[in-house]
Amino acid sequence: MAGYFGHISMPLEPVGRNGHVHTDEELFELTEDGQLPTKYGKRTKYEDGSSIDWLHEEAAERERLHSLRSQAGARGLLLPLLESARLWFVVIMTGLGIGITGAWLDVLVKWLGDLREGHCSYGFFYNQVACCSGLDPGEQCHEWLTWSESLHIRSIFVQSLLQCFIYVVLAIAFAGSAALLVETYAPYAFHTGIPEIKAILGGYVFDAFLTPWTLLIKALGLALAVASGLSLGKEGPLVHVACCMAFGLSRFFRQFNHNEAQKRKLLAAAAAAGVSVAFGSPLGGVLFGLEELDTFANETDVMWKGFVASAVAAVALQWVNPFGTAKLVLFQVTNAVDTWRAFELIPWLGLGVVGGVLGALLIRLNVEVALYRRNSYLNDWPVLEVVCVSAITAGISYLETIKVVFSRVQASELVANLFQECDPTKGDYHGLCNPTAMWENVFLLILTAIIKIGLTAWTFGMMVPAGIFLPTIAIGACLGRAVGLMTQGLYRAHPTAWIFLSCPPDPSERCISPGFYAVLGASAMLGGVTRMTISLVVIVFELTGALSHVLPIMICVMTAKWVGDALGKDGIYSVWIAMRRYPWLPAVDYHDKGETGANIMRSLEKLVTIEDERFTVAELEQFLETYDFNGFPIVREKRLVGFATRDKLKESLDPFAQGDAFLRSKRCSFSIRDSVVPEDTRADLSECLEEAVLQLRKEVPQELVVSMFQKLNLRRILFTHAGELTGMTTKSDVVALLTSHFPHTAALSQRPTYSRAPS
Amino acid sequence: MAGYFGHISMPLEPVGRNGHVHTDEELFELTEDGQLPTKYGKRTKYEDGSSIDWLHEEAAERERLHSLRSQAGARGLLLPLLESARLWFVVIMTGLGIGITGAWLDVLVKWLGDLREGHCSYGFFYNQVACCSGLDPGEQCHEWLTWSESLHIRSIFVQSLLQCFIYVVLAIAFAGSAALLVETYAPYAFHTGIPEIKAILGGYVFDAFLTPWTLLIKALGLALAVASGLSLGKEGPLVHVACCMAFGLSRFFRQFNHNEAQKRKLLAAAAAAGVSVAFGSPLGGVLFGLEELDTFANETDVMWKGFVASAVAAVALQWVNPFGTAKLVLFQVTNAVDTWRAFELIPWLGLGVVGGVLGALLIRLNVEVALYRRNSYLNDWPVLEVVCVSAITAGISYLETIKVVFSRVQASELVANLFQECDPTKGDYHGLCNPTAMWENVFLLILTAIIKIGLTAWTFGMMVPAGIFLPTIAIGACLGRAVGLMTQGLYRAHPTAWIFLSCPPDPSERCISPGFYAVLGASAMLGGVTRMTISLVVIVFELTGALSHVLPIMICVMTAKWVGDALGKDGIYSVWIAMRRYPWLPAVDYHDKGETGANIMRSLEKLVTIEDERFTVAELEQFLETYDFNGFPIVREKRLVGFATRDKLKESLDPFAQGDAFLRSKRCSFSIRDSVVPEDTRADLSECLEEAVLQLRKEVPQELVVSMFQKLNLRRILFTHAGELTGMTTKSDVVALLTSHFPHTAALSQRPTYSRAPS
Repeated sequence: MAGYFGHISMPLEPVGRNGHVHTDEELFELTEDGQLPTKYGKRTKYEDGSSIDWLHEEAAERERLHSLRSQAGARGLLLPLLESARLWFVVIMTGLGIGITGAWLDVLVKWLGDLREGHCSYGFFYNQVACCSGLDPGEQCHEWLTWSESLHIRSIFVQSLLQCFIYVVLAIAFAGSAALLVETYAPYAFHTGIPEIKAILGGYVFDAFLTPWTLLIKALGLALAVASGLSLGKEGPLVHVACCMAFGLSRFFRQFNHNEAQKRKLLAAAAAAGVSVAFGSPLGGVLFGLEELDTFANETDVMWKGFVASAVAAVALQWVNPFGTAKLVLFQVTNAVDTWRAFELIPWLGLGVVGGVLGALLIRLNVEVALYRRNSYLNDWPVLEVVCVSAITAGISYLETIKVVFSRVQASELVANLFQECDPTKGDYHGLCNPTAMWENVFLLILTAIIKIGLTAWTFGMMVPAGIFLPTIAIGACLGRAVGLMTQGLYRAHPTAWIFLSCPPDPSERCISPGFYAVLGASAMLGGVTRMTISLVVIVFELTGALSHVLPIMICVMTAKWVGDALGKDGIYSVWIAMRRYPWLPAVDYHDKGETGANIMRSLEKLVTIEDERFTVAELEQFLETYDFNGFPIVREKRLVGFATRDKLKESLDPFAQGDAFLRSKRCSFSIRDSVVPEDTRADLSECLEEAVLQLRKEVPQELVVSMFQKLNLRRILFTHAGELTGMTTKSDVVALLTSHFPHTAALSQRPTYSRAPS
Repeated sequence: MAGYFGHISMPLEPVGRNGHVHTDEELFELTEDGQLPTKYGKRTKYEDGSSIDWLHEEAAERERLHSLRSQAGARGLLLPLLESARLWFVVIMTGLGIGITGAWLDVLVKWLGDLREGHCSYGFFYNQVACCSGLDPGEQCHEWLTWSESLHIRSIFVQSLLQCFIYVVLAIAFAGSAALLVETYAPYAFHTGIPEIKAILGGYVFDAFLTPWTLLIKALGLALAVASGLSLGKEGPLVHVACCMAFGLSRFFRQFNHNEAQKRKLLAAAAAAGVSVAFGSPLGGVLFGLEELDTFANETDVMWKGFVASAVAAVALQWVNPFGTAKLVLFQVTNAVDTWRAFELIPWLGLGVVGGVLGALLIRLNVEVALYRRNSYLNDWPVLEVVCVSAITAGISYLETIKVVFSRVQASELVANLFQECDPTKGDYHGLCNPTAMWENVFLLILTAIIKIGLTAWTFGMMVPAGIFLPTIAIGACLGRAVGLMTQGLYRAHPTAWIFLSCPPDPSERCISPGFYAVLGASAMLGGVTRMTISLVVIVFELTGALSHVLPIMICVMTAKWVGDALGKDGIYSVWIAMRRYPWLPAVDYHDKGETGANIMRSLEKLVTIEDERFTVAELEQFLETYDFNGFPIVREKRLVGFATRDKLKESLDPFAQGDAFLRSKRCSFSIRDSVVPEDTRADLSECLEEAVLQLRKEVPQELVVSMFQKLNLRRILFTHAGELTGMTTKSDVVALLTSHFPHTAALSQRPTYSRAPS
């Protein structure tokens, strides 16, 4: 008798009970020969583009563990332990791997970036800091030569021309080679990767996205792209790289390789480790997994693995210690005023609103660019596009020399400088601390932010690995610093105004910390772009160490999210998922307007069903050729018998279909106990019948249908009434419903409207 | 035709469509008269002790909102806005309320605590700090008089005797009056309250737990209990107080008052605000809600409200600013060594293990004490017990004067001192920084920890409001500081040993920070007792500001949880929930061992069902008298027709039962369309039929059944096969399954075995 999704209703027969003890290997061998007493052991093969069946995978894992535990004697104890050890091995190795990779990527980026300005006289592979290390304070560094110094050019005009030329040419070379690498070897290595990871963790099968080649190209391309000075960050791609690592490691162990659900749990932990390394934020990584990837909900053991992977990755990063600081806090906010005053809420709320508006604008622009790229000749010249954009970016950043924008240094340095409070004992970054140049600074900061918004909107989606976090932080930091400078200016101009009563009356004393305003601006902008909340707050203060200012950060993020949500419902990752139409269910609170399940189901008339015992084997084969659905409800008259997936149907049909004419003329019978066909003329296909798919009445609120899909990871729900089939809803129907408000859904999954070689 | 859980299958008829516009009030009035076109508006009344029907409540809310939105004209826009405004009003007011309450409780506790030592000469209501404020540094405070000074006693012996006497008497008076207040006015105000809040948020109905009286008594009793010096903290009770506030406020608004699910969403936000105030940790509050209360999973809007409530509460606390520091960080770790060395992992892992073991021990002891209290004469003398324990506690703490333990100051001061690094420019707390007295200090710290474990295990569960967090932190801090001192001592003795190579070779330089070890010890102990992970890490570093040390904190918490879980599966709150047998489903990953739904269901033979159209009205009344189940499956022969709850059955029966003999002899018919009884002899009870209860086959894995209960908030699942009822599982069956491993399940919900007046 068949049970839930197959044959679990039989009392489980431990493998080793009849005296023969299977080795761990054998358990899998048996599985592949289809000889296990139950059939869950059999690996379901999914093709790229399909969705995994979570319930089936969980059941398979449960059954396999059960088989292991019921092995005789010590093996029954040791094998499960070994399983567990393998799992932790992969988790810890992934953490170590991504920590070390992240550290070395930093080193590579630094070296490549410095190479655009000059080189070290005593060793080509030293970056500027390493080259000049070991000097006494104040001593000038003669070991680091700019290119013009190296070529002994005297004329200042030729010097700057040459420097500029090499700077731009190398930027183009780096970006171009990154694009070429991606285009040639690993087309999936472009972009951030987070939308795809979200989809994969939700059950989407996309193995090509996680190959070792993708890992290598993404890591290398990322270093080149960041070093080229394009407006992009390394955060999202690092998450992708971490997932590739976990995926690669998992291939060595059948327990993951054969079970898609287990593999995804590993990937979730790896993603957390990736964030941990990207921001030096172990806790932020776990919370990112919790909030943005939505994978840990109700899965405490996955969260736990994410926690460990994050911690290990952060330890590894600190241990390699690329810049000799041994600190996780990347953009340490120092010297800020510790307390804050009530009137500051006004500029902060303002920053929140600006962050929300500009975040929504950035998303909108990014979508428009993506659509334009898709539907114009750019679609055929991705490398050329990258080359042009990197040339423009490099050109603009050279404007800094004539004090027009702040963008020559790599974005991370810019951010670090903007987060810094003014300290007379330290150097002043481009006159930011000069009170007389306030309006000039404000103007420059805002201009920089505007230019960066444009560049980022264009860059995010080109054929290079690109993260959106760092550019967003840079934009927000510019705006925040500008607002901070203005507030400070106002205070210095009117130190005794009633609004500044809580400040010291002497304007030379510090009351407002513009560096901290930059942190708030960055938080607000991130809130507007990603629409994350808690994980964002944690990441920001792990990034800056500004723990005592957690409240203002929370307020800014909240405001930005509110404003952003009012202007456009989705964060940038959700928008990309919708554009590519991955089968990913957002974990939003969906509220219907009184619709019922009937509204979302495909009704019986529109369904292709298989009538039990109507088809012969040959006819059923023909039927499967005709319809290419993933599965079919089996009915007897109108009564629902069960469901059969296409794969299983084919598998069960095979023995009959390859037989003689007699076998091929047998009737396909799914529910043997109700059979009306004589035993010798029927083909027993009951093996492929899933009898207990979830059934609902079509009168249930649509809300409940959606929430069941969200929470139980279902692939389909059948609607019945008194045992009779009335309709069916699949995951993709629900995804379509939840993304229907977005105008460009599936815009990137369709055929481009422009193509060089139309067929 | 009836639909899902009633009548939602009919196209929703907007209330205002026929021209008449209902006022908001009317909508509810109509509801109470049962005249709304649909019946969800009708409030289901739950009795204390039952579980709410989430799906019904959600449906009712959805329908009410729909009615509001379909009001004609501007009302259709304004009313939903007004709803939303009310909701945010309650959230923000709760945040404000608990923030202010928390601040004033602190003031009250400080004053009462100081009162045990003396009083202020110029104003009785000043505490010691306030009394002595305004002095120049170094000046001695003559305004604060100890009791013996006040009574002009000269003899040192009489002085200390008197001080000791007043100290102990006041402790007894405070604790005794707290217990008396609780026993007399609000019996539910004792203990921490978190187990109950968890159960309530999970759907348990326990309105008596959240009354204004409970609020008042809990707040007052808490202040008294904390001031009495008992080994308890204010954290859990503050969460309870916050929930009482939200509950009280919600009563003024019908939208919450009439919908238990909406009310619970408010309570979740309030709980987050409570934690936020208790620890000065707004982010920790949200994460506590996420992890420990398990309420926000898949409910982003609830998380969002928790976020806002937490932030508002923290702002309010900071604004009242009870101690004039304007800082949220309560136990600021200062002056710690910023970097840490690899060898320190050894003592840290050791601390993790110790925390796990002692945490499990504390839980075990606490359970034993609770059982003993229940089953001995103590059960009848709760106030006496409190008096005795507070006398003992006060006596022990007086041992500090002769340097035996560190426990005279309130636990929060002790913790603050232990977290402090030694700084020659500041005072030394009880010679902790004296390197020559190291072993003495270690011994004292360990002794203090042991004594505190015993006292805490006894105190937590007595008839006073009591939180477990602070005592646990104190125990952990003592142990951690001891380990830190030992490590430091080892380093000072052997500064050149290979293990200390990474430290400076001169032992007078700082390499190890014992204060930070105290933080780690506290984290480990908390991990062992509460078994929280991420929220705990966030709370600890929001509490201490030790952001750069987040990794060691994570490692300690992880180790402690691992070790603790190995020694006893549940945290202290889960244990209490199990002992009281609240219908609360832990969000654990449950894995069955191959069992199926058949294992957990009550089979048809053991179920009491109602056969459709068999009973007359009179017989059904009799039937309801006989069986006191909450609801009954309705069947026709064996085929499942639906389910009817007891309340609805009674309600539908009423019109017939109060009629004449003819009415009472009618046949009760639930499914009219299949009826075989003539229309004039049947009583139409289809209104009370829930047709679409969730149905499964009994062959599904037990794991899936459990996870459906956990994730979908169900009250019951019916098992059917081909339309025929085979069994039923209710929430309490699943709760019993998940708590079955705990030996003392329901130990406190049963009758005490000892009682003064046995009946």
